Amino acid sequence: MYQAGDVRVTDVPDPVLQNPTDAIVRVTSACICGSDLWPYQSLPATSEGRRMGHEFIGIVEEVGKDVTTVTPGDLVVAPFVWSDNTCDFCRAGLQIVCRHGGQWGAPGVDAGQGEAVRVPLADGTLVKLPVSPDSALMPSLLTLSDVYCTGHHGAVTAGVKPGHTVTVIGDGAVGLCGVLAARRLGAEQIVLMGRHRERTDLGREFGATDVVAARGEEGIERVHELTRGDGTHAVLECVGTKQSMETAVRIVRSGGAISRIGVPQYDEGPLGFDTVFRNVTFTGGAAPARAYIEELMPDILDGTVQPGRVFDRTVGLDGVPDGYKAMAARESLKVLIQP
Amino acid sequence: MYQAGDVRVTDVPDPVLQNPTDAIVRVTSACICGSDLWPYQSLPATSEGRRMGHEFIGIVEEVGKDVTTVTPGDLVVAPFVWSDNTCDFCRAGLQIVCRHGGQWGAPGVDAGQGEAVRVPLADGTLVKLPVSPDSALMPSLLTLSDVYCTGHHGAVTAGVKPGHTVTVIGDGAVGLCGVLAARRLGAEQIVLMGRHRERTDLGREFGATDVVAARGEEGIERVHELTRGDGTHAVLECVGTKQSMETAVRIVRSGGAISRIGVPQYDEGPLGFDTVFRNVTFTGGAAPARAYIEELMPDILDGTVQPGRVFDRTVGLDGVPDGYKAMAARESLKVLIQP
Repeated sequence: MYQAGDVRVTDVPDPVLQNPTDAIVRVTSACICGSDLWPYQSLPATSEGRRMGHEFIGIVEEVGKDVTTVTPGDLVVAPFVWSDNTCDFCRAGLQIVCRHGGQWGAPGVDAGQGEAVRVPLADGTLVKLPVSPDSALMPSLLTLSDVYCTGHHGAVTAGVKPGHTVTVIGDGAVGLCGVLAARRLGAEQIVLMGRHRERTDLGREFGATDVVAARGEEGIERVHELTRGDGTHAVLECVGTKQSMETAVRIVRSGGAISRIGVPQYDEGPLGFDTVFRNVTFTGGAAPARAYIEELMPDILDGTVQPGRVFDRTVGLDGVPDGYKAMAARESLKVLIQP
Repeated sequence: MYQAGDVRVTDVPDPVLQNPTDAIVRVTSACICGSDLWPYQSLPATSEGRRMGHEFIGIVEEVGKDVTTVTPGDLVVAPFVWSDNTCDFCRAGLQIVCRHGGQWGAPGVDAGQGEAVRVPLADGTLVKLPVSPDSALMPSLLTLSDVYCTGHHGAVTAGVKPGHTVTVIGDGAVGLCGVLAARRLGAEQIVLMGRHRERTDLGREFGATDVVAARGEEGIERVHELTRGDGTHAVLECVGTKQSMETAVRIVRSGGAISRIGVPQYDEGPLGFDTVFRNVTFTGGAAPARAYIEELMPDILDGTVQPGRVFDRTVGLDGVPDGYKAMAARESLKVLIQP
């Protein structure tokens, strides 16, 4: 990505092992994230370009001499940051701030929307998939790299438990995965706030019990009607705008939690007296996908959940620029890339 | 209180039973809360005056016909809101928003800084004290009405566990009780941020391992030095200013929690990208003191903790106006009232 709206497919040097803990992975599936749309709308011009993509599945081609958990030929999924998985933050399930990890596409590090990737700290980062590369489960398994884990993180941090009521704000792929995760954790009522009929229909299939298409005051009123005026125990804020946060505060039940899994487009938000008096908790954050992959994979393997249904378009590498365009125009929910 | 700075001791009608669930309690100990200082600094002029005080111990004088848990002659402590203790919020430990409860000093309801109080929903509100009214434990038992429970609520909601590191911002009575509560829950390192030497000295006796007298950038830097740059797992924000919240965000460890137990003097606060990326949780709130009284009382009865040491001045009812003045001028940490 060279600037907002300008995504190009270009040749870069083939990745090579740099450290004994590296692996080289040939990408078989990748995708475009809703969070990629923020730079797609705002990135200043840059002559070097920024490598994009932090969600991918691939086949291990080569490993450094210290790598012990994966070998060439393994099919693996990469979570959306790389991490050692041994430091104190990782052990606490917070790989997102691993002491030795980092982000895909950072200077000197490859990214997922490409043919191959040098994976640093391969043992801590990659998780083997017990299927063949042509498995029909591939789209759902790919969501373990970020979007399904992110929805799950939102539901977990908001403390969703059996019998709870939950509102999910936003019918993007993260919001829909949030619905799926809340349902899996036993939520009794799941209100999905979103205006795109096709997406909210999928949300109903994922477990939403109610859909609120209205926004602002009208949307808030509607959620209160659905919850006898109480609001819901948990709110998963999957948009990231200030308006969404203000809505979240108005529809969360006293003593409840708002988990923030949309990338915030604001510096300050509603933290006033009402939220303290009512004991509202603000939690969530960038998801430590690595922490959840093993836990969430079985339900995908046995078909219990199909988070891969959020993909509604598949492109090759050449189609990536159009994929961004389609997602930004809301013509596509989430784009799968098959290099 | 008739307006900011204007506290008067006046005669009001003696309380009488209005509902079969009421009790009349003659106040034997009450106190002035740090939160009372906010209206003391800002209340607009009012001809009727506002009754003050939400922390008291007293002797039951009379009970309505439906009251079953207390009888005349019982010594009782009242938590800082009244509640039925049976609704869904109360059962969830959130008596602060009880469906049928309310606040002391609200229209038609007495308050604690006086001779006697009509206590609505007496069964749900009052807790018997197994000591005589002249017990030397009275100051510490009085802190169960609010300030010690509030410190405890901050530590509990921030998830303080054995081995954790904690920063307490503010050396007022709530902050010092937060230190005591964090210590009781097993915190290993407790950094107390405060500038009043006498108070931070008491904080050290309560369990603070480090004291940071500096504020702003210097204070933040000092906490980072004390925590190898990580910040602390929990931050108890016991002041309520925006600056304190901004400090809290800067010194909380990634994945950690800030509990807000100071009354917020701001509508918007720091909720930006950094807090989402680092998975910072904002929690806490007005404490459901009623939920904690039975749990915290034994340690007071056996002398393990002495939260009553936060009282450094005792007045009669006539001395209440001077008590406010002394607390507002920071000449007194917390004022005990013996009507």
